Amino acid sequence: MTDPAHPALHPDRLFPAEPTTRAIARRLYAEVRALPIISPHGHTDPRWFAANEPFSDPAALLLTPDHYVIRMLYSQGVPLEALGVEPNGERHTPPAPETIWRTFAAHYHLFRGTPTRLWLDWVLTEVFGVDGPLTSANAAQTYERICEQLATPAFRPRALFERFGIEVLATTESPLDSLEHHAAIRASGWPGRVISAYRPDPVVDPETPGFIAHLERLGALAGTDPFSWRGYLAAHRARRAFFASFGATSTDHGHPTARTADLGERDAEALFERVVRTVRSGELSGADAETFRAQMLTEMARMSLEDGLVMQIHPGAWRNHNTPLYRRFGANMGADIPMPTDYVAALHPLLNRFGNERALTIIVFTLDESSYSRELAPLAGHYPALRLGPAWWFHDSPEGLLRFRQQTTETAGFYNTVGFNDDTRAFFSIPARHDAARRIDCAFLARLVAEHRLPENEALHVAHDLAYRLPKQAYRL
Amino acid sequence: MTDPAHPALHPDRLFPAEPTTRAIARRLYAEVRALPIISPHGHTDPRWFAANEPFSDPAALLLTPDHYVIRMLYSQGVPLEALGVEPNGERHTPPAPETIWRTFAAHYHLFRGTPTRLWLDWVLTEVFGVDGPLTSANAAQTYERICEQLATPAFRPRALFERFGIEVLATTESPLDSLEHHAAIRASGWPGRVISAYRPDPVVDPETPGFIAHLERLGALAGTDPFSWRGYLAAHRARRAFFASFGATSTDHGHPTARTADLGERDAEALFERVVRTVRSGELSGADAETFRAQMLTEMARMSLEDGLVMQIHPGAWRNHNTPLYRRFGANMGADIPMPTDYVAALHPLLNRFGNERALTIIVFTLDESSYSRELAPLAGHYPALRLGPAWWFHDSPEGLLRFRQQTTETAGFYNTVGFNDDTRAFFSIPARHDAARRIDCAFLARLVAEHRLPENEALHVAHDLAYRLPKQAYRL
Amino acid sequence: MTDPAHPALHPDRLFPAEPTTRAIARRLYAEVRALPIISPHGHTDPRWFAANEPFSDPAALLLTPDHYVIRMLYSQGVPLEALGVEPNGERHTPPAPETIWRTFAAHYHLFRGTPTRLWLDWVLTEVFGVDGPLTSANAAQTYERICEQLATPAFRPRALFERFGIEVLATTESPLDSLEHHAAIRASGWPGRVISAYRPDPVVDPETPGFIAHLERLGALAGTDPFSWRGYLAAHRARRAFFASFGATSTDHGHPTARTADLGERDAEALFERVVRTVRSGELSGADAETFRAQMLTEMARMSLEDGLVMQIHPGAWRNHNTPLYRRFGANMGADIPMPTDYVAALHPLLNRFGNERALTIIVFTLDESSYSRELAPLAGHYPALRLGPAWWFHDSPEGLLRFRQQTTETAGFYNTVGFNDDTRAFFSIPARHDAARRIDCAFLARLVAEHRLPENEALHVAHDLAYRLPKQAYRL
Repeated sequence: MTDPAHPALHPDRLFPAEPTTRAIARRLYAEVRALPIISPHGHTDPRWFAANEPFSDPAALLLTPDHYVIRMLYSQGVPLEALGVEPNGERHTPPAPETIWRTFAAHYHLFRGTPTRLWLDWVLTEVFGVDGPLTSANAAQTYERICEQLATPAFRPRALFERFGIEVLATTESPLDSLEHHAAIRASGWPGRVISAYRPDPVVDPETPGFIAHLERLGALAGTDPFSWRGYLAAHRARRAFFASFGATSTDHGHPTARTADLGERDAEALFERVVRTVRSGELSGADAETFRAQMLTEMARMSLEDGLVMQIHPGAWRNHNTPLYRRFGANMGADIPMPTDYVAALHPLLNRFGNERALTIIVFTLDESSYSRELAPLAGHYPALRLGPAWWFHDSPEGLLRFRQQTTETAGFYNTVGFNDDTRAFFSIPARHDAARRIDCAFLARLVAEHRLPENEALHVAHDLAYRLPKQAYRL
Repeated sequence: MTDPAHPALHPDRLFPAEPTTRAIARRLYAEVRALPIISPHGHTDPRWFAANEPFSDPAALLLTPDHYVIRMLYSQGVPLEALGVEPNGERHTPPAPETIWRTFAAHYHLFRGTPTRLWLDWVLTEVFGVDGPLTSANAAQTYERICEQLATPAFRPRALFERFGIEVLATTESPLDSLEHHAAIRASGWPGRVISAYRPDPVVDPETPGFIAHLERLGALAGTDPFSWRGYLAAHRARRAFFASFGATSTDHGHPTARTADLGERDAEALFERVVRTVRSGELSGADAETFRAQMLTEMARMSLEDGLVMQIHPGAWRNHNTPLYRRFGANMGADIPMPTDYVAALHPLLNRFGNERALTIIVFTLDESSYSRELAPLAGHYPALRLGPAWWFHDSPEGLLRFRQQTTETAGFYNTVGFNDDTRAFFSIPARHDAARRIDCAFLARLVAEHRLPENEALHVAHDLAYRLPKQAYRL
Repeated sequence: MTDPAHPALHPDRLFPAEPTTRAIARRLYAEVRALPIISPHGHTDPRWFAANEPFSDPAALLLTPDHYVIRMLYSQGVPLEALGVEPNGERHTPPAPETIWRTFAAHYHLFRGTPTRLWLDWVLTEVFGVDGPLTSANAAQTYERICEQLATPAFRPRALFERFGIEVLATTESPLDSLEHHAAIRASGWPGRVISAYRPDPVVDPETPGFIAHLERLGALAGTDPFSWRGYLAAHRARRAFFASFGATSTDHGHPTARTADLGERDAEALFERVVRTVRSGELSGADAETFRAQMLTEMARMSLEDGLVMQIHPGAWRNHNTPLYRRFGANMGADIPMPTDYVAALHPLLNRFGNERALTIIVFTLDESSYSRELAPLAGHYPALRLGPAWWFHDSPEGLLRFRQQTTETAGFYNTVGFNDDTRAFFSIPARHDAARRIDCAFLARLVAEHRLPENEALHVAHDLAYRLPKQAYRL
């Protein structure tokens, strides 16, 4: 039952309650609300926009692939199978989509106070016109209403892309990807700007299963010898250029730590050869793997200086912490857990090599909020090449976004940050996420104005910069 | 002198000042204010309720045993002896209780802005009907007033238990405890529900002084051979069953770190035997002690899965950091200091063994607030067996309770938390502590409502859950 | 363009917007606003007050030496040379001061939301009577206006010292300093109280370039043999006494970590001799350097107990993180970066030796905010010798000052803190910094009052203590 005084999508949502501050937030937000969405980092599927086919059922669209959703339900005892996740190599009859949807509705209260609730309320209300929060009572009806609409042309991927006001959307692909969907999008004549980003983890992290096969494929795609250091680097250069030809303006690196290294060329070459040899023999050491990943961040920065691709570093997650679950269901089941993450020592080799380069942009993210004020803001407030990515993953939430501004602004300012990233596979929630970020930035700025720490005309300028100008500029879009 | 506009116990205390938000907080609080107190974790003395004798003088009741009180006064130069603490093995004439009370009153300003001030204002005003803050001027009069009332039947332990509205109160005992007071309570026919909790640290931590003697006594009580691995584990099972027969629904583990281990049976047995041998010979290694404690957490989880006792882990305190003080006065003198605490690697063995068990509940606490958003909320928002204990010890305070909700809710939700624990020896302050927690939860929820992040009817449901339903459910009460 | 509704220096700046809370903050602030400034820790140049000559041009006065200013501009691509910083040993024609000023004005938007903006707005408006924020449009005019005023007697150092209401100002000097400027100030008959503080890092840290020469000079100044352990310690005692004779009441120690040691006398002597020998031979080990610094903190505490100097420990900065920049421009270029800092283990030797001494005061600072609630407040809320320094460096900012109070007060109270330090070289901004700290403390207290956590009459007492009484008392001024 909805409280009529508090509809799911109140126009003042996420604004401070204090009336003066709220009025300022409203004025700031009014100026940025309708700006086009710049989505420079995310994980949507380019095939959607290439094929432009209708999306599947509500559960497969909104629930099963969303790790925020399945992790919360799993934590409260709902088996992953009940959410449509299929165990590897087991005989399994998945539940009907309607059943998954009802299970979700029966547990919707678990999301109270979470960003998932905000995003899904937005999707249900704004995209599908459903009234009030989801409940067991309205689950079947809501399911039907979504299904009906998904079948209409207005809910095809390209139509929604346009309806959502997306100016540019970056997907993320491995160097081994053919970018065929990006090619198809271009060939189709559709003007939507969907670009790729170069994420070389599978050919950079020697602990990735299938590393040697990946290198073989890399070499084949690039036409170089991937088992020589020079050929391997040349293959990266070739694939980066190929990605750039499909609009990519950035690379992305998801490493366990932020460690970087700056070996001499001979040492780097010797390390590469030892890594290849020991991966093949099953004797790769953890230390070599870590040093190789660390060295490759510096190599990638060197290439970025040549080809202009912006570099993103996403460190600090212990992937697949739940080993039994990983064995049964694979990755991305909501079991990635943040770790304490060092930046000051870790980035020292990279920053000492390239941190003073004004032509280079390195965007760093964190899952360890204690590093905001202690390490990241001080680093970004000094090195010309460094910028801070927005509050990430678990911290892409109202409180998390606010803490990011509260803990970075005074040392790094606004202009060493890069606006918002939605970083999502959940296409339907992209506008909700950008809207939340804009609202929180306006709320933060409104407090500065209300406390006479910034004139309102300047705050308006900043709001516009954060919502639109800074991401375009930082990602060279 | 009391400001008449700001009495010590204002009905709106701890609520946000912004009028709309305050009005919401009031409405939420009105619905949970009078709910019975569930106190599933604490350190009151069961003898009080067994004997039901009058409490002693105000200083011995409210000051000398309260480590929050004595640590603050000691930090500002008041000797512990002046507070009634007796040095070990020294000739010492303790000050008169009235003198201790006056010393305290003269330093009451030190507690401005601390939870001790909130709790003691509540005890003086609500329990004893004293007006205004304690001062040197009213110290003697206040002392007398408390003494008079303590002598009356209405201030005996059982009468206060009932007056305080306590539905269930858990104490904490060692496996070596006979639970005689719990037996006496049951035998008395008094219906107050006072239960025990199983805290095996003295027979689990081989660095405890007297460890071997403790094991001997454990074996004698349980009727098993405590120096064989199987006999030792069987003794735990027997004592856990004994505790459960006195209403215990939980175990509690206060370890220096959160480290767990999952050794094979032979390795565990060999470790146990080495630990016993080296403790006897005085050659116990720190590494063996740590691994043994780590392994025992996993053994305790295994037993919890069998007998249904909820498991609590309280890690991260450097006990008795002030060595000279410890030598003179012993433990619990306010010199326990929190340390950075890792959970992600530390709990990995335990969670990989039992974290997916829906029949198991492990409640984890922290003294390291940086772990809330980085580690604990992500872990609890994934593993079915894991729940987050409330803000603990130094963080059981208005700002601390608020930070707990601000930093855990968005990732773990409300339903992976377990309501409030008072965790106290200070019986008289129990209602004040629960009241503060309810007020802060309502204040947090009121902000969500005022910012249109949660409808008020749902917030009311959550307030009720946090105050009453969740602790009963999580602790199986 | 200034928003007329929001002048640069609104009388309510930094106060919460909520009207009831703001009204309380105003009342508290009205009582502390005009209190004299106690500046017990800073880095102004005593020569200014000795010579009392006019300050130089606006750029050399306000921009080039301010590491907050140059780090932000450098981070956004402005070369240090363009800000008047001269590279070591390179031929370089520095830009005209007017040009530097214009460069700064063109980038003034970068400081939105930072304390530098607050301080500089205050200096421009209050000290120089300039209207509105600095812009490219008014840069030339502003520059001229500052120049004109700097040429007048009212803008000489002593006149400003008096105008600023400074009761006492501590500078910081090395034991190798002759204190000639302090002597000249005394000899001049000017009554301004400018005192020194003893900062022995150059003769305590064996990794300092020129360490052996420093010891030689130390011995010459003190008349002892600086290469024997006893002579070295005696030299410290002599120089401390010399500093005290010029009003010094404190020492200051800027170490990479907070590590302390408590070696026996022979071990300490042997370590000293090994350090001297290995520094000479170029074979100093990092471990010996760290242990020597650690031991010297304990030696300094021992001397403080003898001579009454208050001891300050400022740990946790990675100095000159940007090696290429350091090589070109030297230290203090905005490239010092905080690191995670341990206090619990690090201070254990020192606190176990001297932490219970009521006659000793050790003031500890941090750049790692995660230690506030976890380590520092618990330590300071227990050890009689320990006090918490205020939010430091990157955290001397509205949000940082507020977090300090929010995260330390509940455990350490107000009375284990020591009021505010400006810690600055930027003489003109000293009143702005103290004013901001007073406003934030009043804002914090106002919230306690508005939430009925503290009566207003007591809050007023605390506000006065924080602004004036506590720093005088803690620093024995």
